[in-house]
Amino acid sequence: MSAAHRRAVVLLSGGLDSATVLAMVQRDGFEAYCLSFRYGQRHAIELDAAEDVARALGAARHVVQPIDLRAFGGSSLTADIDVPKGRDEAAMASGIPVTYVPARNTVFLALALAWAEVLATGDIFIGVNARDYSGYPDCRPEYIRAFETMANLATRGAVEGTLPVRIHTPLIAMTKADIIRTGTALGVDYALTQSCYDPDPAGRACGACDSCTLRRKGFAEAGVPDPTFYQQRS
Amino acid sequence: MSAAHRRAVVLLSGGLDSATVLAMVQRDGFEAYCLSFRYGQRHAIELDAAEDVARALGAARHVVQPIDLRAFGGSSLTADIDVPKGRDEAAMASGIPVTYVPARNTVFLALALAWAEVLATGDIFIGVNARDYSGYPDCRPEYIRAFETMANLATRGAVEGTLPVRIHTPLIAMTKADIIRTGTALGVDYALTQSCYDPDPAGRACGACDSCTLRRKGFAEAGVPDPTFYQQRS
Repeated sequence: MSAAHRRAVVLLSGGLDSATVLAMVQRDGFEAYCLSFRYGQRHAIELDAAEDVARALGAARHVVQPIDLRAFGGSSLTADIDVPKGRDEAAMASGIPVTYVPARNTVFLALALAWAEVLATGDIFIGVNARDYSGYPDCRPEYIRAFETMANLATRGAVEGTLPVRIHTPLIAMTKADIIRTGTALGVDYALTQSCYDPDPAGRACGACDSCTLRRKGFAEAGVPDPTFYQQRS
Repeated sequence: MSAAHRRAVVLLSGGLDSATVLAMVQRDGFEAYCLSFRYGQRHAIELDAAEDVARALGAARHVVQPIDLRAFGGSSLTADIDVPKGRDEAAMASGIPVTYVPARNTVFLALALAWAEVLATGDIFIGVNARDYSGYPDCRPEYIRAFETMANLATRGAVEGTLPVRIHTPLIAMTKADIIRTGTALGVDYALTQSCYDPDPAGRACGACDSCTLRRKGFAEAGVPDPTFYQQRS
């Protein structure tokens, strides 16, 4: 069956990476079913961005799934922690980021698998990247392969061979600059995306948190004008 | 480290099997953190049963995590479908049961893994049984092993070797009668548990759905008096 008649579940955060994945999925002719999560993140404005991105790129549907992490008693996970600013990449690689979700990609991929089963598809896309952000175990290719192996033993369609599960990671070996160039060629409007961990009430990026720093560097290296509205331009 | 100082996450449905697992976990000296799910199930009374069981057996905590399956558009999954009654085991093995949750054990185990990470433990218990209920791909030992392999690549504690993940399935090879005998010896009050797919408003079991049929047969084979309140005793 060609991709033109296939559905795909796409994990969509509202950031730059997953917007690019969605554009690649659309280019390849899939019908895209986009999944985001509301887990008490302080930058919940990224969910508005996800909705804008899904609409702009013509996704078939966009669902925001709530996860009640507060029930697990890890209140510090989503509480008011100061967002670190102005760190270099070595500093970023240490410590737990403010957007930390325990067993994050496992929870996200498990719910993507549930939706995929309802949609009768096995194609799931996730914008993990093992190059620019290598500190997370669950962004590594060996983790993704192990999830795929498990998923192919988990659902009836996969076990019977009618709906084999494939976890697609089109960005896994790309630099941020590669990602931006690819998305720009596919018409992604990055002004709609939201990477900042600490936007102001108007949604403008701080320009200095880890995520803003990586984003700015990516646009500079790609030689693409950065359309982000920053609170301060440095 | 001995189990006496370890925490464990226990998936608790309110039914007979997971109540027995909890009693075994307590026997082995773990501090038990019980996790149930509210996913629009028609027999939501099982969540009251889970709470009663957790309290009676002295669990450290009981959390009910909501999952919004309706968001995935599979409204038939939890809608008003007639509960089949009076079927034999061959008939039970065919078709999708009313309690069907897509990618069920993957979603449940993923959220258990998230909680385990917050609790700084790698021990997760699930009452799957490959013997009396063999129709589900995600109850098989090879599925459980694949989930465990994936989980050990997913979290920082597992990758660093400080918190290896172990998915414990103490019931996997037991018959329903074995399970009932074990739980009875450990003091489980099965009158608190709720197996019926179609209880009446007072919470009394129908006595004839697939789940009631397996439960009654289990008590009969175990030679243990069945404490269940049935609407009709046959």
